[in-house]
Amino acid sequence: MDRTVHEGLEGVLAGESAICEVNHEVGGLRYYGYEIADLAEHCSFEEVAYLLLMGTLPQPDELREFKEELVASRPVSHKTLDFLRQISPSVKRMDVLRTAVSILGMEETLHNKNDHVTNLKKATRLIAQMPVILAALLDQNTKEEVRSDSSLSHAAYLLTILTGIRPDPFAVKVIDVSLILYAEHEFNASTFAARVTASSLSDLHSAITSAIGTLKGPLHGGANEAVMEMLLEIAAHGDVADYLAERLDKKERIMGFGHRVLRKGDPRSDIIKNYAKKLGERMGDEQWYKISTTLETLMRQQKGLYPNLDFYSASAYYLLGLPIPIYTPLFVCSRIAGWAAHVMEQHDHNRLIRPRCAYTGPAAKTFVSLEERV
Amino acid sequence: MDRTVHEGLEGVLAGESAICEVNHEVGGLRYYGYEIADLAEHCSFEEVAYLLLMGTLPQPDELREFKEELVASRPVSHKTLDFLRQISPSVKRMDVLRTAVSILGMEETLHNKNDHVTNLKKATRLIAQMPVILAALLDQNTKEEVRSDSSLSHAAYLLTILTGIRPDPFAVKVIDVSLILYAEHEFNASTFAARVTASSLSDLHSAITSAIGTLKGPLHGGANEAVMEMLLEIAAHGDVADYLAERLDKKERIMGFGHRVLRKGDPRSDIIKNYAKKLGERMGDEQWYKISTTLETLMRQQKGLYPNLDFYSASAYYLLGLPIPIYTPLFVCSRIAGWAAHVMEQHDHNRLIRPRCAYTGPAAKTFVSLEERV
Repeated sequence: MDRTVHEGLEGVLAGESAICEVNHEVGGLRYYGYEIADLAEHCSFEEVAYLLLMGTLPQPDELREFKEELVASRPVSHKTLDFLRQISPSVKRMDVLRTAVSILGMEETLHNKNDHVTNLKKATRLIAQMPVILAALLDQNTKEEVRSDSSLSHAAYLLTILTGIRPDPFAVKVIDVSLILYAEHEFNASTFAARVTASSLSDLHSAITSAIGTLKGPLHGGANEAVMEMLLEIAAHGDVADYLAERLDKKERIMGFGHRVLRKGDPRSDIIKNYAKKLGERMGDEQWYKISTTLETLMRQQKGLYPNLDFYSASAYYLLGLPIPIYTPLFVCSRIAGWAAHVMEQHDHNRLIRPRCAYTGPAAKTFVSLEERV
Repeated sequence: MDRTVHEGLEGVLAGESAICEVNHEVGGLRYYGYEIADLAEHCSFEEVAYLLLMGTLPQPDELREFKEELVASRPVSHKTLDFLRQISPSVKRMDVLRTAVSILGMEETLHNKNDHVTNLKKATRLIAQMPVILAALLDQNTKEEVRSDSSLSHAAYLLTILTGIRPDPFAVKVIDVSLILYAEHEFNASTFAARVTASSLSDLHSAITSAIGTLKGPLHGGANEAVMEMLLEIAAHGDVADYLAERLDKKERIMGFGHRVLRKGDPRSDIIKNYAKKLGERMGDEQWYKISTTLETLMRQQKGLYPNLDFYSASAYYLLGLPIPIYTPLFVCSRIAGWAAHVMEQHDHNRLIRPRCAYTGPAAKTFVSLEERV
């Protein structure tokens, strides 16, 4: 047995996957062979979710059918929505969302089957249910006419029920782009957690519940909320360089920069940055973009770190009027497509994920009975 | 970068740990240096839980204090218990338990702190709350005088509120032994899932929710329920050898045998086997032991496989009058001590667990717009 200890499994190939190619040398990112920039520019989230679940981009009739299935799968029981709404607002929204998906697992009638076709049905339903669940996390009392509006795309539906107003097409495009960029990133921590759970032949909802609990952490999805809180602090402070110097002096982490794999820059950041810029211009509120680009330059000069996807996503969400506590749940709303694709792939070629550890504890000890312990 | 693909992370050292030493060569198992056989024979579950959380066996006054804290931490809100009780009995109990711990996470007032002292408090409370949660999974309407009986040890309390009757001391000893044997096993799949979740600096309840979802699978904790269902089938069938031949002919898996790491036998199996034998003798029901030993011999001869901990645990639980759907939740009730110890260790020496995958998907493709796809 190889005695090398792989802390954090850094650089370890923990399995094979056909879903996503991350080229850390050139900062490339492809879903099933397609460049992320092309997908973000030309596709809806539904097309990309189809790509991740099926392995190919849909033809027009396939896309129509998939969208119809998503629309039909949106409803969540009133009992569950009422349960989520009565949870204290002081509870982290990611904790509520983790509980929500665990409850949806109990309600899933196909539950204890793990074959490919069943997983696909469960995944489609769960993706479709996310917007209504996110609205319940915000205790939005959405009008029935909006909730049942089958003419809205996934992104438009999500933005409408979260904000309570009909968004303009550019706002919907920004949400579509964001959902596409966040949808998949090979063996990141939350996806890997989902695969570990699935590898005992546990079910899709269990696996995605694990993923949500993992994404919650500040070293993963929790970062996008922390970025916006930091930008608000900087705006109140007034001087970006000064603020940064103070935080670096205190050895505090600057959120939204750096990536375990993409050390030379995150291709998704450039894409969302462009949309954050345009949003600011359209809305006549360019301060967030200015603060962000200044911080980006300083961080590159002083720390050699590049912004990751979370960095410009934060101010884009803010400009769209989305409350900060919903930012990480929005990440879930997107990544759930990638998680589901990985759970299906894991189940289709399963091997229990069970590593070993390097034992560093005490040598064998002689047992001493309770009475004789001093 | 090493291009070896480690499917299932078999044999990969995914980190360091001081908690548990599994010697697969000689079938040894130690918690913080102490032989599993000594702990099972001489300790209560409370002593072993203390050992796992603190790293040392307690002195008498430390144990007294820890037990008092456990007793005081038993209550769960009526609202949560009522919510769990109204869930349809057709829902898998592990799905309800996963949801329950996720809800307890929302109720945990210390929630968003991950320091060692806070984790210890959260872990102690969660261990203490398990018996009442398991009783709710069975919709047991336990008398208040039992529920609030602070004189009962953890094992006695658990068995009393699950069965509704005051158990005899030997029955309590069997539960204590079972809880001790199941409490910890280094980087098994559920513990590893907990560590992956904790590694994003997510919280203890999120990590344990991941672990429960993982333990649920039939390749992990779900096996103990499957063993008892098989033993009942064999009893109805009448002939062990014949039954086995039929199943092996159909290429079906025989539950309760073999182990990813302990290929030469599981030291825990011999211990629980001895208690299963004595329980059968005392209760005048030795058929399960006879069926089990016959199957054990046949499996060794025909497949070279040894029973694991789940195998004799199943019939021991059965003789204690415990309903089969609670067997895997009972595993949780025990392993939660090990999971908590690993979450604390992960947080104390954190490194995000983020492996890579070997990409096996399509090469780069040129994007084709929806209209042009045929």
